[in-house]
Amino acid sequence: MAARVRASLERQGMMATLGVELVALERGRVEMALPYDDRFTQQHGFLHAGAVASVLDSACGYAAYSVMAPDASVLTVTYTINLLAPAAGQRFSIIGQVVRAGRTLVVCRGEAFADGSEMPFAAMQATMTALYGRPGISG
Amino acid sequence: MAARVRASLERQGMMATLGVELVALERGRVEMALPYDDRFTQQHGFLHAGAVASVLDSACGYAAYSVMAPDASVLTVTYTINLLAPAAGQRFSIIGQVVRAGRTLVVCRGEAFADGSEMPFAAMQATMTALYGRPGISG
Amino acid sequence: MAARVRASLERQGMMATLGVELVALERGRVEMALPYDDRFTQQHGFLHAGAVASVLDSACGYAAYSVMAPDASVLTVTYTINLLAPAAGQRFSIIGQVVRAGRTLVVCRGEAFADGSEMPFAAMQATMTALYGRPGISG
Amino acid sequence: MAARVRASLERQGMMATLGVELVALERGRVEMALPYDDRFTQQHGFLHAGAVASVLDSACGYAAYSVMAPDASVLTVTYTINLLAPAAGQRFSIIGQVVRAGRTLVVCRGEAFADGSEMPFAAMQATMTALYGRPGISG
Repeated sequence: MAARVRASLERQGMMATLGVELVALERGRVEMALPYDDRFTQQHGFLHAGAVASVLDSACGYAAYSVMAPDASVLTVTYTINLLAPAAGQRFSIIGQVVRAGRTLVVCRGEAFADGSEMPFAAMQATMTALYGRPGISG
Repeated sequence: MAARVRASLERQGMMATLGVELVALERGRVEMALPYDDRFTQQHGFLHAGAVASVLDSACGYAAYSVMAPDASVLTVTYTINLLAPAAGQRFSIIGQVVRAGRTLVVCRGEAFADGSEMPFAAMQATMTALYGRPGISG
Repeated sequence: MAARVRASLERQGMMATLGVELVALERGRVEMALPYDDRFTQQHGFLHAGAVASVLDSACGYAAYSVMAPDASVLTVTYTINLLAPAAGQRFSIIGQVVRAGRTLVVCRGEAFADGSEMPFAAMQATMTALYGRPGISG
Repeated sequence: MAARVRASLERQGMMATLGVELVALERGRVEMALPYDDRFTQQHGFLHAGAVASVLDSACGYAAYSVMAPDASVLTVTYTINLLAPAAGQRFSIIGQVVRAGRTLVVCRGEAFADGSEMPFAAMQATMTALYGRPGISG
């Protein structure tokens, strides 16, 4: 399972571009780290919500993927993100966890934390789907 | 109003990094263009949902900003995005529009279209807030 | 199609209890009417968001059902609702429409209007799923 | 605080009609119970998502209200609900909790459980707002 997650993650150009690292991985839970980078800011100089959302989405997606059958691929159906405070900090910890896994749909929640804070600055609720046997879609 | 939007948008490192262009701007409606770029892909080679979400978020945010008082700043409170199909294409058109503006909260909807298609591949519903007189927050 | 929608709707105890009427029905679009009733209020005397959300959910669900195969059943996966203003009025018009239908998932949007207003007081974005061959689930 | 919550809850016609009881209340956390009732079913005989969403919305709303200033009123801005499984059971436990409270916006999460199960069948992420000094709005 860990090998499948790492292989898929390495193919995400977006995660490499953002400088994301996989910090921890277990069945149903993924933790990633995202560094501050002024290429990805919003107009007030904080990290753009889109960068945080991208990593929360990937963390939730891989948490879901980690509980799917080995031949499944994972796609995001929809997510909701609340931005509870600006993304102010140098290093962001991003955690995705499975809430409940159904036959094809897996619901996850994610939180983002800045510089070791225990109070999240962003919260996500996401719906992922397992795909099987679609040409061109694997991982 | 257009000058305020352009000035704020130019300060978003994220939009410059993604290569986003402002295509059209009127009160309550913003249209942007996002090119395909393999720095921002997900594991199947399509554009990462996070890149699309970032631009939808900005388009909705500036649509909201365009109806706010001149001394307001805009922040995203929350959004929901549905990914209706993979982001397959070379050039994506991203449109944000105000649904209803209240005293401080403005609700917007956005759609993303690939290569001139009239069927959206992503849909957003977003809640923006106007901020006044916060140190370090302008635009 | 209309017969399937009406048969399923008549089995919804919730819609009967709320006094909901089906006003219009076409492929991909459903319009319902909800009367004010002080059994369903919130603490300020307006209609409770839950009553409005129930009808928006059903309108979106039947809009999705109307484009599904005849042997499909419909279930709500997730929805987001924005409450743009209090539900102040005597009669509410609730409209659900399909944005895009995939193999099993159908994404819809809904709006709620009070007393003939053209400005919505609530907006929904919903994800519905088609189910096939589940015992005890039909319509 | 508990007196304010109870007084406001007692004014919600919707909660009385649904037969909802307040089970537990502390700062930032509210637990309610909702009985099965065939007046509030969907087409397959399960409790309608709208009934569950109504109570989750109220539980999140009162969790938010419990951390607001005494003269604040509470309104729901937006919520997202995931329906993880049908609402099958006789008695549903509905819990709302504050994730993070800002100046005027409070973000909460809720879960719904059937008949003592520890696995939620519905999950909500909600954004509440504090209102001050609005005529006709109190509690």
